[in-house]
Amino acid sequence: MANMSNSEVCASPLELFNSITTQGEHVRALKAGNASKDEIDSAVKMLLSLKMSYKVAMGEDYKADCPPENPAPSNNHDPDATEAEEDFVDPWTVQTSSAKGIDYDKLIVRFGSSKIDKELINRIERATGQRPHHFLRRGIFFSHRDMNQVLDAYENKKPFYLYTGRGPSSEAMHVGHLIPFIFTKWLQDVFNVPLVIQMTDDEKYLWKDLTLDQAYGYAVENAKDIIACGFDINKTFIFSDLDYMGMSPGFYKNVVKIQKHVTFNQVKGIFGFTDSDSIGKISFPAIQAAPSFSNSFPQIFGDRTDIQCLIPCAIDQDPYFRMTRDVAPKIGYPKPALLHSTFFPALQGAQTKMSASDPNSSIFLTDTAKQIKTKVNKHAFSGGRDTIEEHRQFGGNCDVDVSFMYLTFFLEDDDRLEQIRKDYTSGAMLTGELKKTLIEVLQPLIAEHQARRKEVTDEIVKEFMTPRKLSFDFQ
Amino acid sequence: MANMSNSEVCASPLELFNSITTQGEHVRALKAGNASKDEIDSAVKMLLSLKMSYKVAMGEDYKADCPPENPAPSNNHDPDATEAEEDFVDPWTVQTSSAKGIDYDKLIVRFGSSKIDKELINRIERATGQRPHHFLRRGIFFSHRDMNQVLDAYENKKPFYLYTGRGPSSEAMHVGHLIPFIFTKWLQDVFNVPLVIQMTDDEKYLWKDLTLDQAYGYAVENAKDIIACGFDINKTFIFSDLDYMGMSPGFYKNVVKIQKHVTFNQVKGIFGFTDSDSIGKISFPAIQAAPSFSNSFPQIFGDRTDIQCLIPCAIDQDPYFRMTRDVAPKIGYPKPALLHSTFFPALQGAQTKMSASDPNSSIFLTDTAKQIKTKVNKHAFSGGRDTIEEHRQFGGNCDVDVSFMYLTFFLEDDDRLEQIRKDYTSGAMLTGELKKTLIEVLQPLIAEHQARRKEVTDEIVKEFMTPRKLSFDFQ
Repeated sequence: MANMSNSEVCASPLELFNSITTQGEHVRALKAGNASKDEIDSAVKMLLSLKMSYKVAMGEDYKADCPPENPAPSNNHDPDATEAEEDFVDPWTVQTSSAKGIDYDKLIVRFGSSKIDKELINRIERATGQRPHHFLRRGIFFSHRDMNQVLDAYENKKPFYLYTGRGPSSEAMHVGHLIPFIFTKWLQDVFNVPLVIQMTDDEKYLWKDLTLDQAYGYAVENAKDIIACGFDINKTFIFSDLDYMGMSPGFYKNVVKIQKHVTFNQVKGIFGFTDSDSIGKISFPAIQAAPSFSNSFPQIFGDRTDIQCLIPCAIDQDPYFRMTRDVAPKIGYPKPALLHSTFFPALQGAQTKMSASDPNSSIFLTDTAKQIKTKVNKHAFSGGRDTIEEHRQFGGNCDVDVSFMYLTFFLEDDDRLEQIRKDYTSGAMLTGELKKTLIEVLQPLIAEHQARRKEVTDEIVKEFMTPRKLSFDFQ
Repeated sequence: MANMSNSEVCASPLELFNSITTQGEHVRALKAGNASKDEIDSAVKMLLSLKMSYKVAMGEDYKADCPPENPAPSNNHDPDATEAEEDFVDPWTVQTSSAKGIDYDKLIVRFGSSKIDKELINRIERATGQRPHHFLRRGIFFSHRDMNQVLDAYENKKPFYLYTGRGPSSEAMHVGHLIPFIFTKWLQDVFNVPLVIQMTDDEKYLWKDLTLDQAYGYAVENAKDIIACGFDINKTFIFSDLDYMGMSPGFYKNVVKIQKHVTFNQVKGIFGFTDSDSIGKISFPAIQAAPSFSNSFPQIFGDRTDIQCLIPCAIDQDPYFRMTRDVAPKIGYPKPALLHSTFFPALQGAQTKMSASDPNSSIFLTDTAKQIKTKVNKHAFSGGRDTIEEHRQFGGNCDVDVSFMYLTFFLEDDDRLEQIRKDYTSGAMLTGELKKTLIEVLQPLIAEHQARRKEVTDEIVKEFMTPRKLSFDFQ
């Protein structure tokens, strides 16, 4: 894994250029040799990181035929050849070559969703009487489908419920995994609605080299971290698919209904499945779709099928719900509404989603204060300059600085965040100071999470995961 | 639907020849015009019936270029051109052009199963101390996989259990549907083992134009007919997939395990699925496979995975269990053993499986004595001659006579059956007398079934369909 923190971008531009060329050849060789997806992904990630370092160092994109000693005149550039490749986003892969991360405006156009604009945020504020969460104010939840419809219903005292989820691929969760849950808890609080949380342990069993017991074990462990976010036990049902499928008279029926109305051609188009994929993978999208329909939870909603569902999730999960919204009218159910978040950047830079399997790619919920400090100082990619003198003179770049990005997620004080942005951009604040601020925000946040998680007993987990009535007022 | 009972085969050979030519063109036109499967199937069925009538009338196969006035010299025949097309058998289609029905010896070779020979039948007799069922004695159950292994285990006091099932596509069941159940009841009695019966209402929902409620309703109605076969309530669990999936902590887990280990390529090869098929159909085979593994029924077998399963079923279900046997070692389970039956012929002839949707294609379990008499007299295809004189002189053909075939299923007295075979073949017994015998066998059989079915209360059905312990002694 390329170590892209600013203090270590010490290679000369030519060295970087040569590394990129070599790494590019390596990627092509892996692809030609049918290397494993993991190997290729990791090599591509490295390549993108190198290209991004080059861009940061040189102020322009890497171009295969233009070594740095001999830059081509800029009016000769072929924009198609030099433009970063199109971002790629699906539930398993998120790739961009831009240090700023995915171009979310383009993604909204490509996915056909709607931007969460000032007007919608104001409307949420009016409807709830609460100041919008900073994830809304700062564009972290940036895209939606049919949120106005949810608000119409809410203003007319019509019920809705929240649905979000997690694929438990390991015991370890990192701070990025908390984003949808932090926001969902806020939604639950301000709208006072029931919430279902799906743990797709069946998906992880199907996709990963795990046993059923391992996948289920991860689901339960992850549920503890989710519960530690502060969900209301009287309004929240957390379920493992492997468990709940065998406990619910409604869930499988909806799964089969959805499966009847989706063809292999469709999931091939949406998810890129091939003939060599297991029939488990091919039919899984119906299992992630089913909780979007209220009668999948007869213990909560009885046989009502008309209760609107609102799904807060990262934008990479949208393909599942595009499919779900396609099927809904065919089986007589309302389409779920969605609120989409951006991706939480890896410490090494915003080009990729974080990986639970790389301990240095993020801050984990189990990290000690010392680990947090070391990781931020050592691995958080910086938008600062190479020397203090240059930094003071030209200032840092918040758009690519991961510490600053993390602060937009976790520092709630808008004024302070804005001051940091100004100071870092002007050069008044140094990289070390910015990192120190982040460390001071993250250390108590993680420590408090760990303390709350410690309070989550097996009995509490069991209660959250028991199918039961939830307390809410639906008309 | 062609009416092929002997008394109505009154067309001249040339008329028949011309009908076949016309019908052949019709089938080609339907196929070219992308007609519905039902339409094509029914036209093909008609075509095969006509060809069979022609063969019965002329003593040789229909040949497109040889009208009956001008038969080609027999030594000029190209055997490949004149041979009936290869039989086709899968879970949805059974087709043959032979009036004798499917060539089961060829099927054994093609499917790679083993013939149930005299030696195996004798071994079953020795193991159980019971005279083998006439379905075994008469080759109605004709093929098996690993039955010797089941007997090895049984003789060593190792447990096994029975698994069979039914796809409830309508309320109406016909006598043919009882064959696997009659035989399974005998197996349960002589081996004294537990039995699980799967009602694949999810399959019928996926394949047919039915609602979930309709499919489930048919499952419950059909369960009554199955219970009326006399199964031991203390040793038998009947379940609807739509129901049981949401009630069992073990079933879905096995379904996912199987689904992880079967690719679309594999089900495409085995079942002929295409990219336009629903993901429900594509993943369904895992649901029919799962009851082959004992821990799909934790309420019966606990978490034991080592209890051998024996599946009595019609041979067209074998593709599901070839797949199951393929997967079993990959997920650490024993392969299920199988006993395969021949198909029960339609009244119109043995070329096709009976259809629950055509009331004249069979004797239904709801038929009155009068309906039975009318159907047999009017529709049962006869191997007799056109006139009494010819019949007395040349005798009838038991190999194509449906009334005689039905007697092999339902007349238990071997000596009487053999006498009928001799008398009909010699011409001593006329078609009317043979039909009368069948009517006299079927009328009380159906009446008794109806009486037993009437005794099956909703409470009894509910008990059979409740997941619960069964009473048996396993070591």
